[in-house]
Amino acid sequence: MSTPTDAVPHGLQAIPTDTVNLADYARHAQARMDTGAWAYLQGGAGDELTLDANVRAWQDLQLLPRVLRRTAGGHTRSQLFGRTLAHPLILAPVAYQQLAHPEGEMDTALAAAAQEAGFVLSTQASTRLEDIGDAVAADDLRGPLWMQLYLQPDRAFTKALVHRAEAAGFDAIVLTVDAPTSGVRDRERRAGFRLPPGISAVNLSGMAPPPAREVPPENGHGSALFDELLHHAPTWDDVAWLRAQTRRPILLKGVLHPDDARQALSLGVDGLIVSNHGGRTLDTVLPTARALPRIADAVGSDMPLLVDGGIRRGTDVLKALALGARAVLIGRPCVHALATAGALGVAHCIRLLRDELEVAMALTGCATLADIHRDIIDTP
Amino acid sequence: MSTPTDAVPHGLQAIPTDTVNLADYARHAQARMDTGAWAYLQGGAGDELTLDANVRAWQDLQLLPRVLRRTAGGHTRSQLFGRTLAHPLILAPVAYQQLAHPEGEMDTALAAAAQEAGFVLSTQASTRLEDIGDAVAADDLRGPLWMQLYLQPDRAFTKALVHRAEAAGFDAIVLTVDAPTSGVRDRERRAGFRLPPGISAVNLSGMAPPPAREVPPENGHGSALFDELLHHAPTWDDVAWLRAQTRRPILLKGVLHPDDARQALSLGVDGLIVSNHGGRTLDTVLPTARALPRIADAVGSDMPLLVDGGIRRGTDVLKALALGARAVLIGRPCVHALATAGALGVAHCIRLLRDELEVAMALTGCATLADIHRDIIDTP
Amino acid sequence: MSTPTDAVPHGLQAIPTDTVNLADYARHAQARMDTGAWAYLQGGAGDELTLDANVRAWQDLQLLPRVLRRTAGGHTRSQLFGRTLAHPLILAPVAYQQLAHPEGEMDTALAAAAQEAGFVLSTQASTRLEDIGDAVAADDLRGPLWMQLYLQPDRAFTKALVHRAEAAGFDAIVLTVDAPTSGVRDRERRAGFRLPPGISAVNLSGMAPPPAREVPPENGHGSALFDELLHHAPTWDDVAWLRAQTRRPILLKGVLHPDDARQALSLGVDGLIVSNHGGRTLDTVLPTARALPRIADAVGSDMPLLVDGGIRRGTDVLKALALGARAVLIGRPCVHALATAGALGVAHCIRLLRDELEVAMALTGCATLADIHRDIIDTP
Amino acid sequence: MSTPTDAVPHGLQAIPTDTVNLADYARHAQARMDTGAWAYLQGGAGDELTLDANVRAWQDLQLLPRVLRRTAGGHTRSQLFGRTLAHPLILAPVAYQQLAHPEGEMDTALAAAAQEAGFVLSTQASTRLEDIGDAVAADDLRGPLWMQLYLQPDRAFTKALVHRAEAAGFDAIVLTVDAPTSGVRDRERRAGFRLPPGISAVNLSGMAPPPAREVPPENGHGSALFDELLHHAPTWDDVAWLRAQTRRPILLKGVLHPDDARQALSLGVDGLIVSNHGGRTLDTVLPTARALPRIADAVGSDMPLLVDGGIRRGTDVLKALALGARAVLIGRPCVHALATAGALGVAHCIRLLRDELEVAMALTGCATLADIHRDIIDTP
Repeated sequence: MSTPTDAVPHGLQAIPTDTVNLADYARHAQARMDTGAWAYLQGGAGDELTLDANVRAWQDLQLLPRVLRRTAGGHTRSQLFGRTLAHPLILAPVAYQQLAHPEGEMDTALAAAAQEAGFVLSTQASTRLEDIGDAVAADDLRGPLWMQLYLQPDRAFTKALVHRAEAAGFDAIVLTVDAPTSGVRDRERRAGFRLPPGISAVNLSGMAPPPAREVPPENGHGSALFDELLHHAPTWDDVAWLRAQTRRPILLKGVLHPDDARQALSLGVDGLIVSNHGGRTLDTVLPTARALPRIADAVGSDMPLLVDGGIRRGTDVLKALALGARAVLIGRPCVHALATAGALGVAHCIRLLRDELEVAMALTGCATLADIHRDIIDTP
Repeated sequence: MSTPTDAVPHGLQAIPTDTVNLADYARHAQARMDTGAWAYLQGGAGDELTLDANVRAWQDLQLLPRVLRRTAGGHTRSQLFGRTLAHPLILAPVAYQQLAHPEGEMDTALAAAAQEAGFVLSTQASTRLEDIGDAVAADDLRGPLWMQLYLQPDRAFTKALVHRAEAAGFDAIVLTVDAPTSGVRDRERRAGFRLPPGISAVNLSGMAPPPAREVPPENGHGSALFDELLHHAPTWDDVAWLRAQTRRPILLKGVLHPDDARQALSLGVDGLIVSNHGGRTLDTVLPTARALPRIADAVGSDMPLLVDGGIRRGTDVLKALALGARAVLIGRPCVHALATAGALGVAHCIRLLRDELEVAMALTGCATLADIHRDIIDTP
Repeated sequence: MSTPTDAVPHGLQAIPTDTVNLADYARHAQARMDTGAWAYLQGGAGDELTLDANVRAWQDLQLLPRVLRRTAGGHTRSQLFGRTLAHPLILAPVAYQQLAHPEGEMDTALAAAAQEAGFVLSTQASTRLEDIGDAVAADDLRGPLWMQLYLQPDRAFTKALVHRAEAAGFDAIVLTVDAPTSGVRDRERRAGFRLPPGISAVNLSGMAPPPAREVPPENGHGSALFDELLHHAPTWDDVAWLRAQTRRPILLKGVLHPDDARQALSLGVDGLIVSNHGGRTLDTVLPTARALPRIADAVGSDMPLLVDGGIRRGTDVLKALALGARAVLIGRPCVHALATAGALGVAHCIRLLRDELEVAMALTGCATLADIHRDIIDTP
Repeated sequence: MSTPTDAVPHGLQAIPTDTVNLADYARHAQARMDTGAWAYLQGGAGDELTLDANVRAWQDLQLLPRVLRRTAGGHTRSQLFGRTLAHPLILAPVAYQQLAHPEGEMDTALAAAAQEAGFVLSTQASTRLEDIGDAVAADDLRGPLWMQLYLQPDRAFTKALVHRAEAAGFDAIVLTVDAPTSGVRDRERRAGFRLPPGISAVNLSGMAPPPAREVPPENGHGSALFDELLHHAPTWDDVAWLRAQTRRPILLKGVLHPDDARQALSLGVDGLIVSNHGGRTLDTVLPTARALPRIADAVGSDMPLLVDGGIRRGTDVLKALALGARAVLIGRPCVHALATAGALGVAHCIRLLRDELEVAMALTGCATLADIHRDIIDTP
């Protein structure tokens, strides 16, 4: 775990005593973070309706527990891509984590490893992927270590990035498919957020800018989006291309429609992350708690499914597993914990959630993840 | 675009820097407008339940996006009544726009043309229709330029008004059918709103008042509404009459019932605007987002449908198109922008909404309007 | 209409200028009335959930208007028990109206007659029924004049009361059947409300108290309710008894179950008032807007139905008529108007609601009450 | 009833005059209790969603009353396990009641007996069960006197505890099955609640701590919950064991799933308490008002059902009976009353609820508990 040094401002390393759940970390982080950085981290697209709906959709699912089952000796272990997971918690890719804490992704990754949680490094991380790999990859007890990929206009650079991740010990590639363009993030825009000096997407350093495009004349005033930016957006062809670049498992992050899930399966994709990007891209999109069971019905028996978005409680994790997820990704809460108390906070945050999951399993009569079936959720 | 002059008070021409969406313009306009004028513009009928329900009904529709589709080179163009629309945004008819800004409808119309948006002039405009025609009609890139019509007690005057609009270059006539009488607008009544000196329905100038009617004796205390005012309300016979007065396309604005839509089709009406008058006439009426798909099922393949009411986001526009609309009308938000920053504000408001629409298309995998189908909206 | 005199405190006779709807009268009345009297008038049973649900149930019904229908020459007239009603508004029986204004029921009755509205006098009125009859019964234009009846323990007194009402010119008897005991009205109890000196149920004056009952020994601590009070509660046998006492129409007030409606019909009852006593007896009971259509399906073609509870807008009246009511009863709002501005206020309150009804009819395309069908309400 | 002594602080024995319902007692108790003790008593699991949902689920059930039925001479008596109950109210087991009042469970039990209500003593009571038995068991008019049981790691001690309860005159054993571990009670944790000196689970005094367990090596960091605590959690085998230890009726408390209800029946269990532990164990679990009718459909004709959770009004009790319960348990409200005014408060609290139940019966046309059928609840 990260060793606190004199460079870390006082107060970034101790867990406030009134911290008993993930919402407490959100409160503490807001008090500690710069207004602009908070708006960037916390804000969602548009009116933030999906941001709220994600949380509420898990809450609204009602549990129908079983009693008096033997749960002694139970555990939260499972297998995923040939690896044993101590529990189904994985830290989601979040960009520029140095906005929250000077140690940024390094603290998060170390805390994840210490807590046997998975970790996904963002393409837009503020820490070099090789540094993360050096610190974590060789840890036997660590959870999955994955590299999140935004396909870059420069395909050669993209390919090199994948190979760098492989070389650094990352187990799998997570291709984000739900953000061909940025969402309309009004909170962030109103705050006038800009990355502060010294924080950048260091893993993209040296990449050439895309060549300028000629706009066809019939387009009138034209559209910077359709005429330029979207020419770099990934398509199914790029998924096939990526499949040819690596033998590591590939997961698509951001799939919500069952037909897209089937298409991914047919192209040799290894897993899916049911996600709406934490409500940060398109507002009023379906909450993931409602999309997950449909994807599970379509391809759940043929490929591992994961899910993120609004998971704040052990009961949420339990419900996600009941609806077909093999593991869940946690985004904002762990960055809140990072901002509050560095690696110590992140580790504590993971532990809180894992403890809540175990309690929820015990109280619904589930000794192992395999015992968690859809029928523990009430259907009105 | 309108040239700011010394006559325009300082502060009516600059866009406040924190303006990132249409709600921001509402906030700014309320701070700038006279209390009475604001009550008139913003208020709805009764308890304003429909006013709120209109907005919420679009929000409550949840999107189910597709990923990894090729959207590069996409656009928002379509054809309507033989004209190419750069995008499906049309400014709704709003009366007395000089209440919001000294340049009133002139600024709005110029901004619309500059942004290739459509524009509908109200019968109760505070600017002469010929002036609007002179300024805008010949613009090649402009969107639709339509004249909204309240049928007047004096049918000869009404006929002349239609012919004046034709002569001034208006492309079509929009007959409002959902306001045979004013709604019960309590906010406006409580504010004691009266039109200030110098602002009037200039296009109705010189019209003779209707002759007094004799009330039949059995009516007891009688009813000013049933015994007098409603004798001037339009009926289906008047639609047939209007059809005979002009060869321009006629649209009916304010249709909510499928049977009325079929009746309009049978009388040679060219298009419909599904509308509840922005919640200003009858409170607790069906929100337009719920009426639209039913009208589309009834006549959507036989005549163009448009819709207004509560559209505040690009996602709302996308949903309207998915439910069968060919274009949408924007009312209050553009007047908010007018009150805030004149033509510049209106142009910016249109651009914000168009940008949001493009982002929503990209994020749901729709390259063109023809790709927007009803199945991008989740059916629970 | 009541002539203001020096005895009426200043401020009880002028309508505040900002009064544009019934909610305004509630606000004004609360400011004018004694806290205890307000708690008595306004409070509902228990947590007042039905009190609120009544209002919301009308609001939640969404209108689906028709356009371009000919409504000129329309009206709100109808026939009820052989009498022409100018409009379908009737003032509900409300006890002790002198709590709201020194002139009490007299002002209310005069205002109702002046506005051609119906009036129902409460058994617990603070004004003699003969005085009301003298002032109003002979008015040709007045609406229905009915006497509300709580069956009294002393059946002979009850019979005499009915005959006094007949002699005083009351047209019908309204037997309340939903209050065999008082509700649990916590707001009133917490306020410690007691009738002030000088205000009493003058029409019950001289009635003998019921004889004490012997409680059977197996009842342990016993129950004042079951062992004493409920022995005086009306039963279906009493309805048959009442039927034998008068040839005037009898209405039952407080029926919510279709089977009870059928039973009433079979006993020769002439009409029903679908009511939950304005949410004052049993909390969490079905809102009347939801009970009405079921009663209408059961007996609506065989006997006139009326409804009360939560009607605050012309659209509410329209919906009640659409769901099968022949007229509606208005309770608290008219007493609010009485407290605010005496007879003038009550008359204004009735006029406001009638105007709203006419506007709602015009805006849904209904020229007469007979044109108001259930299909103007949207069924989701 | 407990005799107030000098040892009872002033203010703990008088009922505040504004106390008219159970919510008033909650308000008064919060003002009187220590912050930590209040958090312990009042708090629920997680985000307290089930805590709120329990209350709302009863409220949301709408009553459809019958009128004009003969209810005179009615009563609230019933038979349960061979005993006549004066009414169906039973005080739920609540631990450590001396936190609320120096007399704790003694006052509660005496007040229950005085009001002919049932009483369930918690395993974690702060008063000796023999003292309760001495004070209450011989009372002829008292309601059921039951002992709640948490199965203890030391089965011999558990067996002795059961036999002590039998010897002390307790009529039945209530085995709690929904708390194999404590819930995640954040409010309590944030308050840092600890039992104050002098208050303890006196009936567990002298019990040996469980022996330490060896954690199997494959468990990595391990889980205190799965590897240790849950080895002491009760299973169906323990129910069979308990069945063999006593001939008194056994009830299981905390059953929500129909299959678990059937299993209990097959093992000779005598009754069930449908409960989610007052929202204190697992958050977002099904409210008991929704679980009850399903359990009733499964086993309601074969064994008595009781229910608790969120019952605050006589109408709630009525609904519980209508959905299949033979009696209801009241938890927090009676402790609120205890904290407010000792035994006097508890007695008053029971009386308030019983009076409300009688009024609700009268107003729905039910003379006896046997008249309360499911059809008095509206099915939308």
